Amino acid sequence: MAEFKLIDRFRQRNKVQRKDVLQGIGDDCARVEMPQGYELAITSDTLCEGVHFPQGTSAHAIGYKALAVNLSDLAAMGAQPSWVTLALTLPQHNARWLDDFAEGFFTLAERHNVQLIGGDTTQGPLSITVQAHGFIPAGKAITRSGAKPGDYICVTGTLGQAGLELLKLNGGIQRKTPYNRLNYPEPRIEAGIALREIASAAIDVSDGLIADLGHILDAGQVGARVVLEELPLSVTMMQDQDPAKMLELALTAGDDYEICFTMAEEHIDAANDLQKELNLPIKHIGNIEEAPGLRIHRKEGVPLEISSGGYEHFSEKKNARGK
Amino acid sequence: MAEFKLIDRFRQRNKVQRKDVLQGIGDDCARVEMPQGYELAITSDTLCEGVHFPQGTSAHAIGYKALAVNLSDLAAMGAQPSWVTLALTLPQHNARWLDDFAEGFFTLAERHNVQLIGGDTTQGPLSITVQAHGFIPAGKAITRSGAKPGDYICVTGTLGQAGLELLKLNGGIQRKTPYNRLNYPEPRIEAGIALREIASAAIDVSDGLIADLGHILDAGQVGARVVLEELPLSVTMMQDQDPAKMLELALTAGDDYEICFTMAEEHIDAANDLQKELNLPIKHIGNIEEAPGLRIHRKEGVPLEISSGGYEHFSEKKNARGK
Repeated sequence: MAEFKLIDRFRQRNKVQRKDVLQGIGDDCARVEMPQGYELAITSDTLCEGVHFPQGTSAHAIGYKALAVNLSDLAAMGAQPSWVTLALTLPQHNARWLDDFAEGFFTLAERHNVQLIGGDTTQGPLSITVQAHGFIPAGKAITRSGAKPGDYICVTGTLGQAGLELLKLNGGIQRKTPYNRLNYPEPRIEAGIALREIASAAIDVSDGLIADLGHILDAGQVGARVVLEELPLSVTMMQDQDPAKMLELALTAGDDYEICFTMAEEHIDAANDLQKELNLPIKHIGNIEEAPGLRIHRKEGVPLEISSGGYEHFSEKKNARGK
Repeated sequence: MAEFKLIDRFRQRNKVQRKDVLQGIGDDCARVEMPQGYELAITSDTLCEGVHFPQGTSAHAIGYKALAVNLSDLAAMGAQPSWVTLALTLPQHNARWLDDFAEGFFTLAERHNVQLIGGDTTQGPLSITVQAHGFIPAGKAITRSGAKPGDYICVTGTLGQAGLELLKLNGGIQRKTPYNRLNYPEPRIEAGIALREIASAAIDVSDGLIADLGHILDAGQVGARVVLEELPLSVTMMQDQDPAKMLELALTAGDDYEICFTMAEEHIDAANDLQKELNLPIKHIGNIEEAPGLRIHRKEGVPLEISSGGYEHFSEKKNARGK
């Protein structure tokens, strides 16, 4: 593979030029400098064809999503993204595919002022590993482990839309509109940064609410009660015929990349201000409790059958991504 | 794939605990802090089966080499390694394979006090992407671009040994000893750090001397003259029957991961001291010249035929790794 040509192609499309990048692509390493008083957040996620995106997904969507899922991890910690590297394994050199991939990748990178500073291109089955870096003011990171009994559990945006799109895609249902949520999730960077001052714990919903909220509960050694009807569904989803199925997707489907967070009751006003400021719904879906485990109730208080088996079991059985 | 179990397995084997790692594996991101007055060097390399290591390579060697090639990039810039992430794509869950891989990876990580702080595990064709971070005192990085006419061109250790091993392996020649150089290259970390004060330019020899020295020449817009008989061969290689073949390997074979660097003449004494201090040969193989291009001569001054086609062409034709 003409590695250097590939690198050149990317270097040319890379329009973000940050002052803290002393040396970008083209030497043995990139060199960057950190602002004082900040921590560096680092995350890395791999996307494989057939596992993380269906075969036939457009190169543009793959490029976008490979970056988006990593920026989403930064958002969930309250980090401001700065630099990324890209390890791209391709079956063959396909200039058109690469241009589309680059377009998807860099469109999102430019939106968040993220600079591609290095990486590697190799020949092999399609696989993309992105590593992303971001800054957090010292001591302001939002971890998974801070949830306390009584805290409100909230989610940004809506849940289940990406799962619904995947379901329709797998069912061969043609849609006039592209799979916007599945392929183009919006990393909640601004929300994550604002939540530094509000949230006691946070995670991005990549594997489904039950699984991801479960990580917050495990990390904080707490439990939770969630009210099923409070789960935020998109308008598209509510137009669907089967409300029960929609709620199941909202509980178990991944790939929405919204932020699930907990906060003390005193921050309700701040959260309300935030959703107006960002024009992003923030929904209170339940509360943290002392007793371990996740209890999912209908409004009238009857626990759902699905919660009896424990969220882990349920999550493993139902997760649409097969992960 | 039982991703969390895999992560747990690695977390347990990860014995390095650095004070600058605020949060390691287990949250949305790792969090680290930088010492003041330093730059951060970042590099990322992918190894794919059948491309970067032959099928049948032991898991231990793959784990070692995946880290070694990245540390080698840090070494070539004069960086002190600190943190790494690992994106591991595996065809299936194989506990024995994973244990061996981890043993190879962490043995080297411990030797250089490098902490694994995150990563991702996915199911798919075997592929390993490591990203490595390291510190360089501000302004002390060794780039590829500083070579000046008159500078000495030097290499650490010996060249061609990994290429010879690959040749024998591909030829089906059984060896009693393992392929130590091909599978277990030594990243020249200590040398790289010491060279901050000496070298005008540096690169690690991953694709072969002609190709990699070529990058130094391109970056510095200079040329070079190299004397063939000065290339440092290992004792093992010199025992081989065909000296011409050995020199060809020393020129063109990759995977040795020695450092090729340039320095002003005034640093000869310092370089001599350094090779004693590190117990690592440093060999003067030629000099930088103003006229572009790489000229390879025999001692008596007759230019080699191979240089007439330009090093790039030659490199592409002969590189043993098929890259």
